[in-house]
Amino acid sequence: MSGVARHAVDLKPRWADMDAYGHVNNVTWLEYVQEARVDLFAAFAAHPDGGMLVEGVVVARVVMDYRRPLVFRPEPVRIEMWVSAARPASFTIDYEILDRGVDGTSTVYVTAQTVMVPVTLDDGRPRRLRPDETAVLDGLRDE
Amino acid sequence: MSGVARHAVDLKPRWADMDAYGHVNNVTWLEYVQEARVDLFAAFAAHPDGGMLVEGVVVARVVMDYRRPLVFRPEPVRIEMWVSAARPASFTIDYEILDRGVDGTSTVYVTAQTVMVPVTLDDGRPRRLRPDETAVLDGLRDE
Amino acid sequence: MSGVARHAVDLKPRWADMDAYGHVNNVTWLEYVQEARVDLFAAFAAHPDGGMLVEGVVVARVVMDYRRPLVFRPEPVRIEMWVSAARPASFTIDYEILDRGVDGTSTVYVTAQTVMVPVTLDDGRPRRLRPDETAVLDGLRDE
Amino acid sequence: MSGVARHAVDLKPRWADMDAYGHVNNVTWLEYVQEARVDLFAAFAAHPDGGMLVEGVVVARVVMDYRRPLVFRPEPVRIEMWVSAARPASFTIDYEILDRGVDGTSTVYVTAQTVMVPVTLDDGRPRRLRPDETAVLDGLRDE
Repeated sequence: MSGVARHAVDLKPRWADMDAYGHVNNVTWLEYVQEARVDLFAAFAAHPDGGMLVEGVVVARVVMDYRRPLVFRPEPVRIEMWVSAARPASFTIDYEILDRGVDGTSTVYVTAQTVMVPVTLDDGRPRRLRPDETAVLDGLRDE
Repeated sequence: MSGVARHAVDLKPRWADMDAYGHVNNVTWLEYVQEARVDLFAAFAAHPDGGMLVEGVVVARVVMDYRRPLVFRPEPVRIEMWVSAARPASFTIDYEILDRGVDGTSTVYVTAQTVMVPVTLDDGRPRRLRPDETAVLDGLRDE
Repeated sequence: MSGVARHAVDLKPRWADMDAYGHVNNVTWLEYVQEARVDLFAAFAAHPDGGMLVEGVVVARVVMDYRRPLVFRPEPVRIEMWVSAARPASFTIDYEILDRGVDGTSTVYVTAQTVMVPVTLDDGRPRRLRPDETAVLDGLRDE
Repeated sequence: MSGVARHAVDLKPRWADMDAYGHVNNVTWLEYVQEARVDLFAAFAAHPDGGMLVEGVVVARVVMDYRRPLVFRPEPVRIEMWVSAARPASFTIDYEILDRGVDGTSTVYVTAQTVMVPVTLDDGRPRRLRPDETAVLDGLRDE
């Protein structure tokens, strides 16, 4: 992170997110990433040029690194995300799922990346990003 | 793949696996990977030296590449997997989720990798693989 | 059950179906009921008069009785179902989720009922069953 | 409702709660009921006499009535619940999932009931409620 503000979401764990080991399951963490991205894309959609981007983007790749287990608790976890790369026909979102203490310390549970590919609305084929879409992404970009 | 047999599982999609876009959701594909690995580990557990391996292994990293969308259908998909790397204190499983046609062709939906870390049963700390465990992994190894 | 054949589905539990108590969760049993009904409705759809019924039916009520816990195992459970009531504008499906032993004994985990309401395709409002739809339901009816 | 305060929880829908029809799925509503009950039981556990009740109670029966569909939205839904019956060896919780408008109106999506059975911790067999447990339940009782 340098000077770009991250987009942040607070997500409340559900008891059902725990698996038979009593931890938030590794699959469920990816659901958390998805929910955070839905919130990010809602922010994109509120931008005058972001609408098309929101409607036709698919997940092409996911990378998840599990740092620390989490047992169910009612308090939310924080998901921070930013655009780490924008290419002609794809872009990458980075995520950190963590607790931020009032004293400035943080406890990271999961870091993740998703590679997103814009597609055409009619036939779902990959397409290039338009200049106005790239500009929207640049607002959350940090490499 | 060279000369090593892959471990294969047939998994029946559920209608509930579809998301609001009518496709098997990107999160759900990771659940498929987990179910396949549970089956693989049951096979490990049946091996005289594999028991310890099964009880104390956690997922440290996941990589998923989405190749093609899947709409719900009652017919199962096939998940093939093999050990692609065994290191002193971790090993990697590769997965292919696909249909195999009777004519020898295949349609790949998702490829994935998970990095697995053996841990101690008492306090969950990372530990080295024992020689007998490495031998079990070698039976499914292909690089 | 008198003389009417039940519709039956075999469903393989997933490891992810277990909750933090290590049992198939009470919510997940309802997912099993849904998957069984999807299979039943696919059978309706294959009937010349059943298509409309399949497309526009919503769940109005669910009753679930939990008889016995189930721990994950790779072997499928059996879901048997039949139409227990057909009224002018709704019908009821009964379900039994069980194991059937080769010796004729059975072990019941859950019994359930869902009340189904046909709706119009254009605006989703409740409507009456047509005579041809009632005839399809009668083929699976037992009271 | 007469003079007894309901226990209330606000639950944020997740995008993943929607099914292929674009509605919060009928199975997922039961997950909402479960999450609300976990919160209620945490309140029981904070009561000096409520601990035993929390640890050993199973769901014996569920009744769900679906009143109105819900499409994903980021705003939470409200789940209100109360004890509608306390018997020697079981008790019933009623739930209403709804929006409450600032003008006093309400929109009900689902109403539900769960019959809860206390069990022994060692072998999971049904047992009678103790007087102190019944007293805890009476604090949320309304018939």
